[in-house]
Amino acid sequence: MATERPDKLRVFSLNCWGIRFFSQLCTQRYEMIGELLDREQHDIALLQEVWSERDFLFLKKKLSSSYPHTHYFKSGVIGSGLAVFSRHRIQDALLYQYSLNGYPYMLRHGDWFGGKAVGLVIVDILGLKAHVYVTHLHAEYSRAQDEYLPHRIVQSWELLQFVRHTSCGADVVVLGGDLNMHPQDLGNRLLRSHTGLRDCYTETDTFDGCEDGHTLIANNHFTKKQDLIPFEKGIRIDYILMKGSQRVNMKCESLSTTKGSVADKPFPYSDHEALTAELALLRSEDSKQHGSGNTPAVSEQMDVVTEACAVVKEGLCQTEALRDKAMRLTFSGLLLLLLPLVMAFLPCSCSCSFSTVGLLGAVCISLLLSGALLYLLFTSHIKVLKETEDQMMLTSNDLQTKLTGCRLSGSSSSNGSPELQPRSPFKREE
Amino acid sequence: MATERPDKLRVFSLNCWGIRFFSQLCTQRYEMIGELLDREQHDIALLQEVWSERDFLFLKKKLSSSYPHTHYFKSGVIGSGLAVFSRHRIQDALLYQYSLNGYPYMLRHGDWFGGKAVGLVIVDILGLKAHVYVTHLHAEYSRAQDEYLPHRIVQSWELLQFVRHTSCGADVVVLGGDLNMHPQDLGNRLLRSHTGLRDCYTETDTFDGCEDGHTLIANNHFTKKQDLIPFEKGIRIDYILMKGSQRVNMKCESLSTTKGSVADKPFPYSDHEALTAELALLRSEDSKQHGSGNTPAVSEQMDVVTEACAVVKEGLCQTEALRDKAMRLTFSGLLLLLLPLVMAFLPCSCSCSFSTVGLLGAVCISLLLSGALLYLLFTSHIKVLKETEDQMMLTSNDLQTKLTGCRLSGSSSSNGSPELQPRSPFKREE
Repeated sequence: MATERPDKLRVFSLNCWGIRFFSQLCTQRYEMIGELLDREQHDIALLQEVWSERDFLFLKKKLSSSYPHTHYFKSGVIGSGLAVFSRHRIQDALLYQYSLNGYPYMLRHGDWFGGKAVGLVIVDILGLKAHVYVTHLHAEYSRAQDEYLPHRIVQSWELLQFVRHTSCGADVVVLGGDLNMHPQDLGNRLLRSHTGLRDCYTETDTFDGCEDGHTLIANNHFTKKQDLIPFEKGIRIDYILMKGSQRVNMKCESLSTTKGSVADKPFPYSDHEALTAELALLRSEDSKQHGSGNTPAVSEQMDVVTEACAVVKEGLCQTEALRDKAMRLTFSGLLLLLLPLVMAFLPCSCSCSFSTVGLLGAVCISLLLSGALLYLLFTSHIKVLKETEDQMMLTSNDLQTKLTGCRLSGSSSSNGSPELQPRSPFKREE
Repeated sequence: MATERPDKLRVFSLNCWGIRFFSQLCTQRYEMIGELLDREQHDIALLQEVWSERDFLFLKKKLSSSYPHTHYFKSGVIGSGLAVFSRHRIQDALLYQYSLNGYPYMLRHGDWFGGKAVGLVIVDILGLKAHVYVTHLHAEYSRAQDEYLPHRIVQSWELLQFVRHTSCGADVVVLGGDLNMHPQDLGNRLLRSHTGLRDCYTETDTFDGCEDGHTLIANNHFTKKQDLIPFEKGIRIDYILMKGSQRVNMKCESLSTTKGSVADKPFPYSDHEALTAELALLRSEDSKQHGSGNTPAVSEQMDVVTEACAVVKEGLCQTEALRDKAMRLTFSGLLLLLLPLVMAFLPCSCSCSFSTVGLLGAVCISLLLSGALLYLLFTSHIKVLKETEDQMMLTSNDLQTKLTGCRLSGSSSSNGSPELQPRSPFKREE
């Protein structure tokens, strides 16, 4: 007979909006976040956008007794912004930096400079092996014309692949962070359907927080109202997801969010709302009946991966066009570079000033270098998009095999007979 | 009672030296490699340095009946060069591109442009779940003054972390590729000791191949003899590693290498020798006594991770010095850029020609752009080195806990008492 002993796990997640010299009242807000964490004594706190290591070290020092175990994930130029504070011992950490993450020349967006990633910490919680993931995906700057959609889909794919392949030995799996996607957005459906992770907001027994679980709300002092249009009430882009295992069944007993203003404080913790989930862990000697068996239907997985593959294909076409433009830019720079050289051999009769020729030389070199660098950048982006497409096709073929029920048996597959391969729902032209 | 039914798995690995327009006799050699693979009918062939997708597609077409399942891993600017040909169905694929891989300005080495990575394919072999990894690490251009050592150590660390965390559900684990490390090099010891992977060369019952298992030999038509100094006879840098599981015990029955020249052909397959391993898979209903229990002693793991951490620390110092130089270069460019501007406001009495001023402008912009880009590059390298150091410290702490036997129990760790933490053998100053 199964013996179940419920334990509790309190998880916190917050995008701290910690861009030094840009985010408002950064120092004061970190002070407030530190106080909140210290008071609440969660088991694990997952923070995003802790862009400055100094801020992380401030929190680490402040929370040294309440959260003795920490990991700050470092990647990209600025960092990943991801930090974990834990009451339980962190045994191991692993980082996967997303292969696509915007463009370096989009300075006003700046996502490229933060090496957006998913971080994994393996934590020993009450004798259970918990795999805790923290992540932050590329922002959506325009919902109507979202030029970063293929990047976010690739990130969602890499995230789900990373979770799928690194969570196999875990008793419990928790993922928290700012996914920058609405609940029913493609990347979100892709992630949930292919990992079996369940959304605490939709699963919770009790909820206390903003309407519809919004984590970006109009009622937040720091929110720019125009960023929310056409979702005036707010949007939900921050999540805590969870998954049990054969040993442990997981249940979200309560979920809460902050609601903009903070009692006795003149401003909120961040421009995002914080999430706190209270998860019940029901151990069982034989819990196969609960398990992680909430994996969605194969047909649903098929549909969503097909949809995602179409977005990746479109991203591929766009990036190929960008690469062609970069090539033209390089050639223009090369041709223009001949101009000052030609002028050097002409009699000095033209009316160009020194500064004009100097400027011309500078412009030519800038064009040439920029063109060449952009060409390299887009070429590597194309590689990533093609790799993602190939992986999606493999998954789709595998699902197709499951669907048609003609899974190759060990002995029949070993003869390598191609006619035994399942028919893929989509094939790339070569 | 255990029931054991031995199955066989034949694995092939070759660095194909496939740099179009540079590697000698590329087309003819791919023809030969195709013939060899077709004839030998391995279960899985792991190829490296298949830099051109056209060459991959040539092999794919040629081997469509003997190896119906393939995956070509795409990353970086040129690609990863990694390809898998399999007789068995590939269910899933995953790619991890190494975070450090040389420098883009080292054009004559060129590793940076190939997105060096580890690729994983999950293959259904006779009803067993095989996790098959293929990889290629950064080359060693000078053993005496190896400026890439920290990069290769970071790659070894990322490789072992990737294998450790993605192989948990596997029945059998195989890793093949060009590690660019001698058998007793630090990165190699690190990989073996922390994954439990065993070297087929040292484990095999029978061996037929070059002396000491060398895969770069003087007796190869394409080998530059000076590259081997001081190892005139040859070096062993290509490997097939393996690991069983609780369900399957693995044994290398035979290992062979090519020996330079090929019968009836005027030249070898590549400048590397190919490896073929015949692995016996002994299934058992209760094989815990074999299992993957060959994990090296904790003290050995501790020693090797401490040694690796010292290399990473040294790499960190070197990279910080490089970043400082890049910063100085940027400022020099900025200062020099003022010169043509100043000249524009001076009376036109100096004797500089148009082309001189043009050249000056171009040089300034080049300096400024190069300095800024190098600064970004080295800053991101520093982030990677610090992240690796942190992960190594976590592992070291975890091993220390195991060594001292004071593993925190679930209930005592939950109070978060810092004094219960094991003392780390090394701590980073903050």
